[in-house]
Amino acid sequence: MKIKPLGNRVLVKKIEEEERRTPGGIVLPESVKDEKAVKGEVVALGTAEKFEVKEGDKVLIAAYAGTEIRVGDEKYLLVKTADILAVIEE
Amino acid sequence: MKIKPLGNRVLVKKIEEEERRTPGGIVLPESVKDEKAVKGEVVALGTAEKFEVKEGDKVLIAAYAGTEIRVGDEKYLLVKTADILAVIEE
Amino acid sequence: MKIKPLGNRVLVKKIEEEERRTPGGIVLPESVKDEKAVKGEVVALGTAEKFEVKEGDKVLIAAYAGTEIRVGDEKYLLVKTADILAVIEE
Amino acid sequence: MKIKPLGNRVLVKKIEEEERRTPGGIVLPESVKDEKAVKGEVVALGTAEKFEVKEGDKVLIAAYAGTEIRVGDEKYLLVKTADILAVIEE
Amino acid sequence: MKIKPLGNRVLVKKIEEEERRTPGGIVLPESVKDEKAVKGEVVALGTAEKFEVKEGDKVLIAAYAGTEIRVGDEKYLLVKTADILAVIEE
Amino acid sequence: MKIKPLGNRVLVKKIEEEERRTPGGIVLPESVKDEKAVKGEVVALGTAEKFEVKEGDKVLIAAYAGTEIRVGDEKYLLVKTADILAVIEE
Amino acid sequence: MKIKPLGNRVLVKKIEEEERRTPGGIVLPESVKDEKAVKGEVVALGTAEKFEVKEGDKVLIAAYAGTEIRVGDEKYLLVKTADILAVIEE
Repeated sequence: MKIKPLGNRVLVKKIEEEERRTPGGIVLPESVKDEKAVKGEVVALGTAEKFEVKEGDKVLIAAYAGTEIRVGDEKYLLVKTADILAVIEE
Repeated sequence: MKIKPLGNRVLVKKIEEEERRTPGGIVLPESVKDEKAVKGEVVALGTAEKFEVKEGDKVLIAAYAGTEIRVGDEKYLLVKTADILAVIEE
Repeated sequence: MKIKPLGNRVLVKKIEEEERRTPGGIVLPESVKDEKAVKGEVVALGTAEKFEVKEGDKVLIAAYAGTEIRVGDEKYLLVKTADILAVIEE
Repeated sequence: MKIKPLGNRVLVKKIEEEERRTPGGIVLPESVKDEKAVKGEVVALGTAEKFEVKEGDKVLIAAYAGTEIRVGDEKYLLVKTADILAVIEE
Repeated sequence: MKIKPLGNRVLVKKIEEEERRTPGGIVLPESVKDEKAVKGEVVALGTAEKFEVKEGDKVLIAAYAGTEIRVGDEKYLLVKTADILAVIEE
Repeated sequence: MKIKPLGNRVLVKKIEEEERRTPGGIVLPESVKDEKAVKGEVVALGTAEKFEVKEGDKVLIAAYAGTEIRVGDEKYLLVKTADILAVIEE
Repeated sequence: MKIKPLGNRVLVKKIEEEERRTPGGIVLPESVKDEKAVKGEVVALGTAEKFEVKEGDKVLIAAYAGTEIRVGDEKYLLVKTADILAVIEE
């Protein structure tokens, strides 16, 4: 199954961050670390003519933006590109 | 009875997904599986000049978008094309 | 008394649907059958230059759209054409 | 005292409908008959260049639209023409 | 002290209406008489190029529109001209 | 430290009005005197090309408009010029 | 890891202000000092063509504007330039 976003939407696969320990060794649960932005990878562009992101880009998305869908066990987001805050270059 | 959408609206027949069992064999009730998007099939286009979808397309629609109507036992949605998130290609 | 809608409004006479029995013979009260859209017949066009509907058209209107008025025992709706979802062709 | 509406506003004198009896002779109080639209007569046009109504027109106005004022014992409405739903031709 | 309104704003001095007695002689307190519109006199025009009102005009303003200020014992309103409903000609 | 407003914003230093006694000698606390508008002096203009106010102007600003900041013991407001109601000429 | 803002967004590193003592020596907790605006330093510009700020600028941002993210132990804000109130020149 392939999902083709429409218009200026982008399909983003959510990246679940691995556990992170504080210097003292305490495991921070996911929800405490960062609840304002969501990390993901662009996997498909919509039908608009021009996009500021490309497939493979790691991006930050405003939390609660877009529509979450699940394909198998993976979580995806269908977001408008205007809701993508930044590209993460590593 | 035939329903002809007006303007940039599209008539979408809702697709009820069959039950799905988790690896452990538990049946997930419909409402747990995916409550953010609705799956459907485009069955009629409106009167606007251009559409990004065509009849027969399987589409994802933002939950709560559009107006639900029932014809016989089938559920349909009258949605503006801007509320169609993506086309599903299988 | 004749009601002439202004602008892009349309006067629609509401169609009360007759009772409908389920296969098991149970009468569904009106409110259970379909509460998202209202059925009507266009009886007068407004003063705008162009309309996508014409007098006599059976239409579906988003519930709660427009202003309900009563003339004698009949219920009418004064609705903007943008709130007419579809034409019903029978 | 003369009230000259500004812009695309119109001064409308509210028409209080006379009591109406049901076939069985019960008097319907005003508030039960029709609470979605208000009947009035256009008594002055604003300063805009063009109006779809003229002085003397009987009109229907969306309830709660406009600003009610009282001159002596009469109730008037200062409404934008866009809130006039229809002209009543008798 | 002189107050010069900016843009399309107008400075209006509120007119407190004198008490009014009902035919039976009961004094209506101010708040009962008319709470939807406020009466005032235009005392200064803003810096916009064109106004539909002029200094000295008696006007009706939608209640709660504009910002009330007090200079000495007088109450004034700084209102956008779009919130002036009508000119009162006496 | 110098604060340079951006765009059509203006930096305004709030003017705290001195106490005022009623004829009977009662001191009105600040909050009772006038809670709808705030008095200030323009101390810096933003980067937009044109402003209707200039540095040194005493102005009235709609209460709650803009963002209050404190520099030392002084209170300032960063407001869009559209929220400045009037210039006070004394 | 480098974060590249998109469109007219800017990446701002929040500046935590050092403790400040009142004349009497009482330490004001951070939240009491100034809760309407946030201080930061622009560390990256978005992809728009023109910005009113540049990297290194100290800026004031309306509290609650933008999306807060954390990289390591530092707090950043991804804000639209329209939400930057002023540049602080020291």
